[in-house]
Amino acid sequence: MIKVQIKDAERFLDQKVSTLQGRVEDVHDMIRNKSGLGNDFLGWLDLPVSINQEELARIKKLKEQYKDLDCLVVIGIGGSYLGAKAGLEFLKTPFKKSKPEIIFAGHHLSANYLKHLLKYLNKKNYAINVISKSGTTTEPAVAFRLLKQHIEEKYGIDEARRRIFATTDKARGSLYQLAKNEGYERFVIEDTVGGRFSVLTSVGLLPFVFAGIDVDGLLNGAKDAYMDAQTPDLKKNQAYLYAATRYLLSQSGKDVEYLVNYEPRLTFFAEWWKQLFGESEGKNHLGLLVASASFTTDLHSLGQQIQDGKRIIFETVLNVKKTDKLTIPWDQNNLDQLNYIADKEISYVNEQAMLGTKEAHVDGLVPNIVITIGKLDSYHFGYLVYFFEIACAMSAYLLGVNPFDQPGVEAYKKNMFRLLGKK
Amino acid sequence: MIKVQIKDAERFLDQKVSTLQGRVEDVHDMIRNKSGLGNDFLGWLDLPVSINQEELARIKKLKEQYKDLDCLVVIGIGGSYLGAKAGLEFLKTPFKKSKPEIIFAGHHLSANYLKHLLKYLNKKNYAINVISKSGTTTEPAVAFRLLKQHIEEKYGIDEARRRIFATTDKARGSLYQLAKNEGYERFVIEDTVGGRFSVLTSVGLLPFVFAGIDVDGLLNGAKDAYMDAQTPDLKKNQAYLYAATRYLLSQSGKDVEYLVNYEPRLTFFAEWWKQLFGESEGKNHLGLLVASASFTTDLHSLGQQIQDGKRIIFETVLNVKKTDKLTIPWDQNNLDQLNYIADKEISYVNEQAMLGTKEAHVDGLVPNIVITIGKLDSYHFGYLVYFFEIACAMSAYLLGVNPFDQPGVEAYKKNMFRLLGKK
Repeated sequence: MIKVQIKDAERFLDQKVSTLQGRVEDVHDMIRNKSGLGNDFLGWLDLPVSINQEELARIKKLKEQYKDLDCLVVIGIGGSYLGAKAGLEFLKTPFKKSKPEIIFAGHHLSANYLKHLLKYLNKKNYAINVISKSGTTTEPAVAFRLLKQHIEEKYGIDEARRRIFATTDKARGSLYQLAKNEGYERFVIEDTVGGRFSVLTSVGLLPFVFAGIDVDGLLNGAKDAYMDAQTPDLKKNQAYLYAATRYLLSQSGKDVEYLVNYEPRLTFFAEWWKQLFGESEGKNHLGLLVASASFTTDLHSLGQQIQDGKRIIFETVLNVKKTDKLTIPWDQNNLDQLNYIADKEISYVNEQAMLGTKEAHVDGLVPNIVITIGKLDSYHFGYLVYFFEIACAMSAYLLGVNPFDQPGVEAYKKNMFRLLGKK
Repeated sequence: MIKVQIKDAERFLDQKVSTLQGRVEDVHDMIRNKSGLGNDFLGWLDLPVSINQEELARIKKLKEQYKDLDCLVVIGIGGSYLGAKAGLEFLKTPFKKSKPEIIFAGHHLSANYLKHLLKYLNKKNYAINVISKSGTTTEPAVAFRLLKQHIEEKYGIDEARRRIFATTDKARGSLYQLAKNEGYERFVIEDTVGGRFSVLTSVGLLPFVFAGIDVDGLLNGAKDAYMDAQTPDLKKNQAYLYAATRYLLSQSGKDVEYLVNYEPRLTFFAEWWKQLFGESEGKNHLGLLVASASFTTDLHSLGQQIQDGKRIIFETVLNVKKTDKLTIPWDQNNLDQLNYIADKEISYVNEQAMLGTKEAHVDGLVPNIVITIGKLDSYHFGYLVYFFEIACAMSAYLLGVNPFDQPGVEAYKKNMFRLLGKK
């Protein structure tokens, strides 16, 4: 499924990662016993084996019912946006739109974006999936006001009601109330599942089903990751091995972790990963700063700095074993001097770039973890999601912070509300 | 044109930024006299007033000649990719493709991407702009081999030759040689202009002209930035003010600079900025680590960490004054509790989010610089490009490094060539 190599990280550490085995077992028990900080938010832990089958069946039926849609507009921010978008990019065929096209809104306050979105939707057959636990978060609420008005004007109130799907709290909040009043199709965000851990609920599954993604394969991947995470043994549990290694690196003076990839479809996955780890650990003036890069693209921009800049970073490489077959053609003139790799597969060259880069960065004193997955399919997306979620819980508890709250996110909102004159 | 506010950064410093005036003047003279490190690469300095008009006219003529193209494939990596892409995103109308669509290739080694690109191009009327000083950089050379073969098979050798435009060295290198042999239309990368400083040459201008961007407006912006940078006076030269402030922050224990925006069209601009500063300063184990975030989107992912994580960061906000008009509708039911901002413009709410966030982050001990531009148009793109280029030269010289080399980029290549068995 997944293989974590820590050799090129461990050599920079004063202690073996295996010396953490005892602490890892304690945290493992704490997670399982729900005795740690933030234990009200462990609903994600068993999700792979407790998927809401009724909801999933309803989503699939809805997709059948609306199979001629041009667009599905997904309104959400943070965890109600990043996981779905990450999955869509991960599983995307380049140069091809899904049918329906999945469009995101409510994830910022750009009038320019919203104005052109409304214009674009004038000529499209579309539906809306609005995702918000409360229904009062400013960004999605603003977008939903505009889009609700637009879809009601376009299709009439009754048809619009059928075309709005609400993913929200099961019994409370303004979106729940509205959805109930209007009779929108409803899907539930459980109290015990925080936003950044919600991609395996209807929050992610609805957009995935509409985009034609093999959701059953995805859930199988998550389930296997779940099974593989049952043991606290660092020799077997690769997620904990990753967590323990990054924890020790953070304790040895490293401040920044780069998640890097060699396939552009993984670029947005890093955004999901950054929320997961950044929001879970970035508190009490602690936590590794999370950054990302896409190679080899960024070897020609960030490469210099990674090789030779401040030595406060390490890299975690997300490596994909199997990709498409495409060989480099032979050229008789060979002006570009590439004939030495003619008839070689491009994926082979990419792999040597990865190995050569790892060696160069390690020589440059950048510790390196490699996480290898088989290929870019729905199974591996599902696997990686759960893998990083359980790794994140372990890592944050090792650090000593509550992995499941985000008190700092309120600070800007408070000021904004005051400036806007909210009572 | 542009306004730099340093108040919320200066309060974290032990000395006033104005105390650097003398050193700034020395560096200013060093740049003008071309007496500093890397002075062979100052060709970008006068570019705004020495644009190659003959080439620009030829580009415009070429665009006229190929006005029915579906796609222009731009092959390049690093500075031959990021600047053009940043400009296209900066100036893009959301939900609308340019005609021709500009597609990038040769900026990584993804077989998946290239395979589907070739398939996509089967049904498209397209041309190629291959950008490389040497013609032997692996990524663009591999892509060009494949695309050259594809375009020759599609149109025949003669027509293919007319549809390939080469931007390369004026007299040397394998792409120069090939272009000359085949009779490709040629554009010049001057010896004195490094990749990350090349966006105002044909490297950027050709894709811009083909995408229908107002290149004359863009160059006017760059020219005004050039004029505004003639004085070393920190009270007047906003680029130097930015450079001096970030330099002092780096000396006061800050390790990471986040470039943040509140308009999604600026997201990729940060990638260009990261190459510019990261590659210029990230050497000798020095230089601020460059990172980026798009708000308010990332306030719901990175926000927690910025507010409350490790205190080694500061923010530079790229603020856009004027955007589209779009007001929040009134809703009688007001379940979402947004009526307190009904009839307000979304851009106004976005601005309060920016101000509220700045206040929150400053309270959280994150110094803050604000760079305000008028709007997202070609003039301001051109202005910002030169603004950051001259700021970067100043900043790197203050730090004491050569702003114009990138020795660390070779390290991974050397290893990769060895692994690939290159002689």
